[in-house]
Amino acid sequence: MTSDFLTWSTALQARTEIVLEQHLPALASAPQTLHQAMRYAVLEGGKRVRPLLAFAAGEACHADPAQVEIVACAVELIHAYSLVHDDMPCMDDDVLRRGKPTCHVEFGEATALLVGDSLQSLAFELLSSNPLGKTPAQQIAMIKLLAQASGSRGMAGGQAIDLASVGVALTLPELEFMHIHKTGALIRAAVLLGAYCGEPLSEQQHAGLDRYAKCAGLAFQVVDDILDAEAPTATLGKTAGKDAEHNKPTYVSLMGITEAKAFARELHRDALDAVDGFDHGQRLRELADFIVQRSF
Amino acid sequence: MTSDFLTWSTALQARTEIVLEQHLPALASAPQTLHQAMRYAVLEGGKRVRPLLAFAAGEACHADPAQVEIVACAVELIHAYSLVHDDMPCMDDDVLRRGKPTCHVEFGEATALLVGDSLQSLAFELLSSNPLGKTPAQQIAMIKLLAQASGSRGMAGGQAIDLASVGVALTLPELEFMHIHKTGALIRAAVLLGAYCGEPLSEQQHAGLDRYAKCAGLAFQVVDDILDAEAPTATLGKTAGKDAEHNKPTYVSLMGITEAKAFARELHRDALDAVDGFDHGQRLRELADFIVQRSF
Repeated sequence: MTSDFLTWSTALQARTEIVLEQHLPALASAPQTLHQAMRYAVLEGGKRVRPLLAFAAGEACHADPAQVEIVACAVELIHAYSLVHDDMPCMDDDVLRRGKPTCHVEFGEATALLVGDSLQSLAFELLSSNPLGKTPAQQIAMIKLLAQASGSRGMAGGQAIDLASVGVALTLPELEFMHIHKTGALIRAAVLLGAYCGEPLSEQQHAGLDRYAKCAGLAFQVVDDILDAEAPTATLGKTAGKDAEHNKPTYVSLMGITEAKAFARELHRDALDAVDGFDHGQRLRELADFIVQRSF
Repeated sequence: MTSDFLTWSTALQARTEIVLEQHLPALASAPQTLHQAMRYAVLEGGKRVRPLLAFAAGEACHADPAQVEIVACAVELIHAYSLVHDDMPCMDDDVLRRGKPTCHVEFGEATALLVGDSLQSLAFELLSSNPLGKTPAQQIAMIKLLAQASGSRGMAGGQAIDLASVGVALTLPELEFMHIHKTGALIRAAVLLGAYCGEPLSEQQHAGLDRYAKCAGLAFQVVDDILDAEAPTATLGKTAGKDAEHNKPTYVSLMGITEAKAFARELHRDALDAVDGFDHGQRLRELADFIVQRSF
């Protein structure tokens, strides 16, 4: 990882924080507890990987950063809502997230439920309150992309498959199917929405970005599984070893740690190849490095 | 209520059912349990008051019914998601809805959580997958309206205020503030989105529809409180007397039943006055009648 990449990513993480802060409801506006909890769940946390992917894809496609920061934040709001709901007792029942008590631990379950619901609405409010893409028709297509990526045939569907697979002996293709929905759909949305803020894409460029997103998204999940199996809770910022404890199938449990690491490296190479044709694809390539190098 | 209104509303309730059925994910598509639960939560239930309001406003504004049915279903999906989440143990903990076991009773809490999340995404997918309004720019404004009506400064915010007011001695203005958010925002969205599918509105017409929606929405809530206090569970299709049991402030608990009925009649008259200027506002007027006559 170059110092140049660190400067770039740190600046855009900070920019994401500012834009999220601007678009989240003010603490002083009613209902105050809900707004306080929404801000708690979103601000000061996370690596902002999805926003960075949107910014990187935007740079590769010569996009206006003022547009990209809106789609970056909308995707991050969907991600944040999914974490709040995923942590609830009826789902993963987790008490620690990004080094802090989870939203329902801090504010109660009912408020956490409404926080997630409200963050999802806010994501669509953001995408419909600011001009995006080259035309209004393209903006509508972008809203549709995020809606599909979030719903039952995207992220939420992936969580349902995840729930149904606890204690079940999944095959590798079944595990991949789950992750393509659970995390892949939103990562793909981040990359494509960032790109759609820029110049029109050739079919080949579109396919390249799509393949990049698929490989980077899967690599992200494989690395997550490796981290969950290897890293101590303090480093992770969330409770480690939960997957094994919950008897959830992971790449590590199915492949073993050595094979899982080799698979992550293969996905990494594929992601780099996929965006080879972009003259300004440097940040996309560096992000693929970053995603994989978190673990080894 | 005229037999003509009954024919109209029955036909459009049936139409709403068909369009919802078409746009909900197929039972056979993965993840099947989630899709089964989404269909369970939405289909074969409810009076479809919000869709009827959208259709009535559409008729008043000479809208294309093919557009109105999309906004009607999007609003109903938001409403259905809110009921699923509202019934969960951490919220109202209700076991009966529309005469059937609630979604979490039938499918478990985790699935119910994902059902609500997915129905919200589907509402925005619907609004962005079909041409609506006169221009794409207007369509984006319509998406924004629904996002704002659903979020923390709309319906979800109203539910947060509702939660915070259990066992609290609210004043009438505070109770109204809660309901304007909890049910009013979505009813307003139904009326305005139906209208936006039609001819451009004068400022006066817009204000009239807005006032109609506010009065009809509040009347709906006052009547709901009266029904909850008076009707047996079998008639209601949901558990009766829950509000009193949960020590929730209602119009009946604050005003008494006689005053609450008089207030509903006053709101009814105001709603009728507000749409006096619409030559084709007959269905809006009949719906105001219907909302109030449910109870006496």
